[in-house]
Amino acid sequence: MSEYIDQDQAGVSVGIVEKCFFTFAAPPDRLKLESGASIGPVTIAYETCGTLNPEKSNVILVLHALSGDSHMAGYYDPKDAKPGWWDIMVGPGKGIDTDKYFVICSNIIGSCAGSTGPASINPETNKAYGTSFPLITIGDMVEAQKALMDYLGISTLLSLIGGSVGGMQVLEWCVRYPDMVTSAIPLATTTRHSALAIAFNEVARQAIMADPNWNQGHYYSGKKPDMGLAIARMIGHITYLSDESMRLKFGRKLQNRSALSFEFGAEFQVESYLQHQGNKFIERFDANSFLYITKAADYFDLAVQYGSGSLVKAFSLCKSKFLVVSYTSDWLYPTYQSKEMVKAMKKNNLDVSFCEIDAQWGHDAFLLPSNRLDNLIKGFLRGVSDET
Amino acid sequence: MSEYIDQDQAGVSVGIVEKCFFTFAAPPDRLKLESGASIGPVTIAYETCGTLNPEKSNVILVLHALSGDSHMAGYYDPKDAKPGWWDIMVGPGKGIDTDKYFVICSNIIGSCAGSTGPASINPETNKAYGTSFPLITIGDMVEAQKALMDYLGISTLLSLIGGSVGGMQVLEWCVRYPDMVTSAIPLATTTRHSALAIAFNEVARQAIMADPNWNQGHYYSGKKPDMGLAIARMIGHITYLSDESMRLKFGRKLQNRSALSFEFGAEFQVESYLQHQGNKFIERFDANSFLYITKAADYFDLAVQYGSGSLVKAFSLCKSKFLVVSYTSDWLYPTYQSKEMVKAMKKNNLDVSFCEIDAQWGHDAFLLPSNRLDNLIKGFLRGVSDET
Repeated sequence: MSEYIDQDQAGVSVGIVEKCFFTFAAPPDRLKLESGASIGPVTIAYETCGTLNPEKSNVILVLHALSGDSHMAGYYDPKDAKPGWWDIMVGPGKGIDTDKYFVICSNIIGSCAGSTGPASINPETNKAYGTSFPLITIGDMVEAQKALMDYLGISTLLSLIGGSVGGMQVLEWCVRYPDMVTSAIPLATTTRHSALAIAFNEVARQAIMADPNWNQGHYYSGKKPDMGLAIARMIGHITYLSDESMRLKFGRKLQNRSALSFEFGAEFQVESYLQHQGNKFIERFDANSFLYITKAADYFDLAVQYGSGSLVKAFSLCKSKFLVVSYTSDWLYPTYQSKEMVKAMKKNNLDVSFCEIDAQWGHDAFLLPSNRLDNLIKGFLRGVSDET
Repeated sequence: MSEYIDQDQAGVSVGIVEKCFFTFAAPPDRLKLESGASIGPVTIAYETCGTLNPEKSNVILVLHALSGDSHMAGYYDPKDAKPGWWDIMVGPGKGIDTDKYFVICSNIIGSCAGSTGPASINPETNKAYGTSFPLITIGDMVEAQKALMDYLGISTLLSLIGGSVGGMQVLEWCVRYPDMVTSAIPLATTTRHSALAIAFNEVARQAIMADPNWNQGHYYSGKKPDMGLAIARMIGHITYLSDESMRLKFGRKLQNRSALSFEFGAEFQVESYLQHQGNKFIERFDANSFLYITKAADYFDLAVQYGSGSLVKAFSLCKSKFLVVSYTSDWLYPTYQSKEMVKAMKKNNLDVSFCEIDAQWGHDAFLLPSNRLDNLIKGFLRGVSDET
C-alpha cells in the first residue's frame, strides 16, 4: 500500500537499523507447539529501534500482520528505496516514539523473512521443511516471541501493538502472559475469524494448492507456485480494501486505454492494480508461509481456547490496559467484532479505551498515514508510561 | 442454493416442460456483435410455461443470471430430482403465475446450456470455438433474445424480470427496445459493476486461466480446467452470501470433527461447503463460459453506453414501468446502486416502484423463497396487466 503513503507525513526516520537473529530450542531442546508437534532449532529475525532504559521498562513490542516482517522502520542501507513497513508510525517523535521507547519487532514463525518457517532447512533432512513443517498457531508465534524477550532479558512490556493478525498476537500475549503486559493496542483485528474471513483464506489456499508447481508443498528445488500465490494475494488484497476505496481509487477507469479491448486480460485499472500486487508479492513471499499463517489466523479463537467458549472468561485472564481501534470501512474484521471484544473486556472491569476511526480505506487503513491514529497511540502510550 | 429452498413453499409445479431450440443467423447471415465481430449460426435454447393468449399480450420474459439456464421451472422428466432453477417463482398461482402469463426463459449466448457459446462447434472449423469465440456483451445477449421473440411472433413484452446479470439484461432491453417493453423488474442488480465487483470477477478469471488445463481456452478435446473453475466458483459464491448469512449458517462449526485437525484441508463447515459448491459447479458449467459472461457483466455500463456517461440520459430512452428490488445484505450490488438507478428513472418521470427487502442472505436472496418478493411481483404484474 506504499503508494498511499505520503512520505512528507513520515517525519524523521529512525535511520539505519540492523536485522538481528536469535536461535533457541537448539537440539536436544525443541519448541513444543499447540498441535502437539515440536520443532527445533528455531531462529527468530528481529529488529530494535530506540534505546532500552536501565530499568528495562520502556519496551514496546510491535507484532506484524500476515505478510509483514521484522523490518518495521528505518533503512538497512542508505540506498534502500523504501524504509521498514511501519516507518510512518515508528521513529523519533512519531506515534511510537523511538526517542522514548525501545521498540522490538520480530518476524513470526511460519513466515519467510528470517524466522523459521516451511522454507527453512530442516536440520534432520538438510532439506526445506515444506509441508513437513508442523501447523502453527498464534499462540506458537507468541511463544517464540516470549523466548526472544527472555533472551533480551525483558520481563515487562510497556505496550504491545499490532494490526490484523498482529492484533491477534497482541490479544494472545495478554491472556498468555498477563503479568508481563502493561498495556496493549489491538488494531483492526478480531478475537476469532468469521466464516467469511475463513472462506476467503480457504479459497486463497486452494488457489495455491491448485498450482501444479506447489507439488504438495515441496517446491523449493524447482519452480515455485507463483501463479497460485499471486491469485491468493489478489483475493486477500480485495478484502483489505473497501467498496468505497476501490470506487475512489479506480472506479471503472481503464488502464492505458480509451475504449474496451474486447479481449481478456487486465484493462480496468483495478485489474492491473491487483495483478501488480500479485506479481510484487511472489517476489518476496513464500507460498507455504501463506498457507501456514492464514491457517493459524483461522484457528485463532480466544473464547474457545481460553474461556471454554466465553470471551468474558477468556479476558478474565488479562490484566493490561487496552486501546482497541477499528475502522468504519473494514469489512474483514468489522467494528462489531471489536465491540464484542471491548464489551468482554469491560465486563472484567479492565481499563479499555475504544475508538472506531472513520476511514474509507478498509482493513488496510491501519497501515496508512493517520494523524488520528498517531495521536491516539501517542496519548495512550504517554498515559501508560506516566502511570508506571 | 437449493438446500435453502423449502419445497413445501413451492406450491404446484408447472409440470413437465420441454427444452426447445431456435437457430438464426444461419449462413450467409451472421449475428453482429457490439465488438464488431460476428457469429453464425446462433442457437438459442429456451423454455416456455403457460399459454400465449390470442392477443399475444401476456408474455413475460425471464432473464437468468451468470450460471443459470433456460430451465426455469417444472421438470423435463417426472424422475428429475430437481425442478428448474426458479420453480419457486414460476408456476400456477405463483409470483409469476403461469395460469395467467406465457413465460419464456432462454439460455444466454456465451453460456453452455444449449445456446451458442465458446463450447459450441464453430461450423467453419468443425471444432469448439474455445477462445476464438468473440467477446460478447449484455447487449448481444439481448439481441439474441430479440431474435427469439421475432421467431415466436412476439412484439410486446408485458414484463421482463431477472436478477443479477439477468437484471442487467432487463435494463438493456428497456433502453434498446423501449416500444416492446411494458414493464420491467430488475432484481438485485446494477447499471454497472463497481471496481469491487470487477475485482472479484477478474481474480476468478485469473484462477481459471492459471489452470494449466485451460490451455488458452482450447481444452475441449482434453482435460478441463476443473480446479480453476472450482476456485472461480468459490470466489463467486462468497460474494453471493453475506457476513451475517455465513455466520448463521456456518459460524466456526467444524465439519465431522470435534477438534482442529492441525492439517490443511477443509475442516470448517464453510470450507467444505465452498468446496462442495465448486465441485458441483464443474459438472455443469464450462470454464470459458464463466470467462465470457463475467466479462460481459464487467463491460455493462448503461450510462456510458446509452447516456454519454449520464444515467439520467440513458433512462430517458425507456418507456416501461419499473419495479426495482434490492436486498439489505447484498454487498455485491448494494442498495445504493439500485437507488442511483431509481433516482435516474424518476428524473425521467418514469413510473417506478422501489423496494429494499430486509434479508440476511446476501446477493443470493433473490433466488430464495420470499413471500415478500412473491407478493411484490404478483401485485406489480397484476397492476400492469390490468392497465394494458
